[in-house]
Amino acid sequence: MGKRVALVLAGCGVFDGSEIHEASAALVHLSRGGAEVKIFAPNIEQRDVVNHLKGSPTDEKRNVLVESARLARGNIQDLAELKVSEFDAVIFPGGFGVAKNLCSWAVDGKNCTVNEHVNSTLQAFHRAKKPIGLCCISPVLAAKVFPGCEVTVGQDKNVDGRFPDAETASAIAELGCKHICKDVSESHVDKANKIVTTCAFMCKAPLHEIFDGIGTMVEEVLKLA
Amino acid sequence: MGKRVALVLAGCGVFDGSEIHEASAALVHLSRGGAEVKIFAPNIEQRDVVNHLKGSPTDEKRNVLVESARLARGNIQDLAELKVSEFDAVIFPGGFGVAKNLCSWAVDGKNCTVNEHVNSTLQAFHRAKKPIGLCCISPVLAAKVFPGCEVTVGQDKNVDGRFPDAETASAIAELGCKHICKDVSESHVDKANKIVTTCAFMCKAPLHEIFDGIGTMVEEVLKLA
Repeated sequence: MGKRVALVLAGCGVFDGSEIHEASAALVHLSRGGAEVKIFAPNIEQRDVVNHLKGSPTDEKRNVLVESARLARGNIQDLAELKVSEFDAVIFPGGFGVAKNLCSWAVDGKNCTVNEHVNSTLQAFHRAKKPIGLCCISPVLAAKVFPGCEVTVGQDKNVDGRFPDAETASAIAELGCKHICKDVSESHVDKANKIVTTCAFMCKAPLHEIFDGIGTMVEEVLKLA
Repeated sequence: MGKRVALVLAGCGVFDGSEIHEASAALVHLSRGGAEVKIFAPNIEQRDVVNHLKGSPTDEKRNVLVESARLARGNIQDLAELKVSEFDAVIFPGGFGVAKNLCSWAVDGKNCTVNEHVNSTLQAFHRAKKPIGLCCISPVLAAKVFPGCEVTVGQDKNVDGRFPDAETASAIAELGCKHICKDVSESHVDKANKIVTTCAFMCKAPLHEIFDGIGTMVEEVLKLA
């Protein structure tokens, strides 16, 4: 039987929701790995709605669960209903929605608060020693919820201009966590905490390299599950 | 130098826009194939906005170009600005948005009208003998615009319950085109017209099989380009 994996979304679109290609890549790799996937998102209003053509916020209101349903082709549940006993692992794709809707990192940085259902989901998987996979900016969730854990968001310097958000690594260190420098094709496995992270779009890389990097994260998560 | 490929979107979400995983898969394969991709969408209002959680239309208004920008991470242009001379090939992912926003197939079937910029784009690539790749429901665009062409939307019967929309094949035949039965892992190449099609989500298949099928379509398009 395939591993049972919960995927947690944060909307649909890089600037106010889940990064679409990261979420899709995770689902492709999970499918290839024979996993049985269920998709969840919190039933809350988005922090903002960004016009992705102009890159600026609009006056619209959208709901994280309703917009995430676009990525899930309608097959999605409220994160409040997730039962950890029914899953072997959980995965969080990235995108600004993680830092806006799943926690307040986009506004508060390391002093952020984490959505209660996101927090309880992470705590429950961790307590049950079930693996947690995160990519792009999502590792900040682990850094905030599990002080002392090891994660990667890529490099801690803007190497070759490929890591423009390298200062995220410092903020993670300030939370008492260990940032591990990795390239886009690699994942880091924190074996003690069963946390698997990869930088994805935190690195300016061709899409297929990001796709493959997420593949290594999914593979490690399924191995640990 | 990589092949220059235009990707044309129809919104963001299977029920009222481009099918997200098809669009992402095409972009991953194009990236791996070394293509230089530019993304386009018509600057028009969506035919409808579907709440993907409930599967029902809402009162909202959304713009095809603005929503497609979510898939393009903001890097997108109005389809009206596409210059065929700047590209070696064009690809249309599927999703209901193709049948609602790029043409009226969802409402009018084989009597549909095709958006003027979609029509002129298709005609111009065809005239220049540059390949056109289409997946899922998008092959109906070719069937409508190029009578006599060969396309696949999967099977013409609902084999094993995997092709619930098999009657699309009959409608294509009624337009004077030849429907070629193919499985999800395959593409059909109409060499005379340089039209490459694959069924993608017209088949109920695991996501990685759809991903790989789109890979064969992209590969054939790049070969012909």
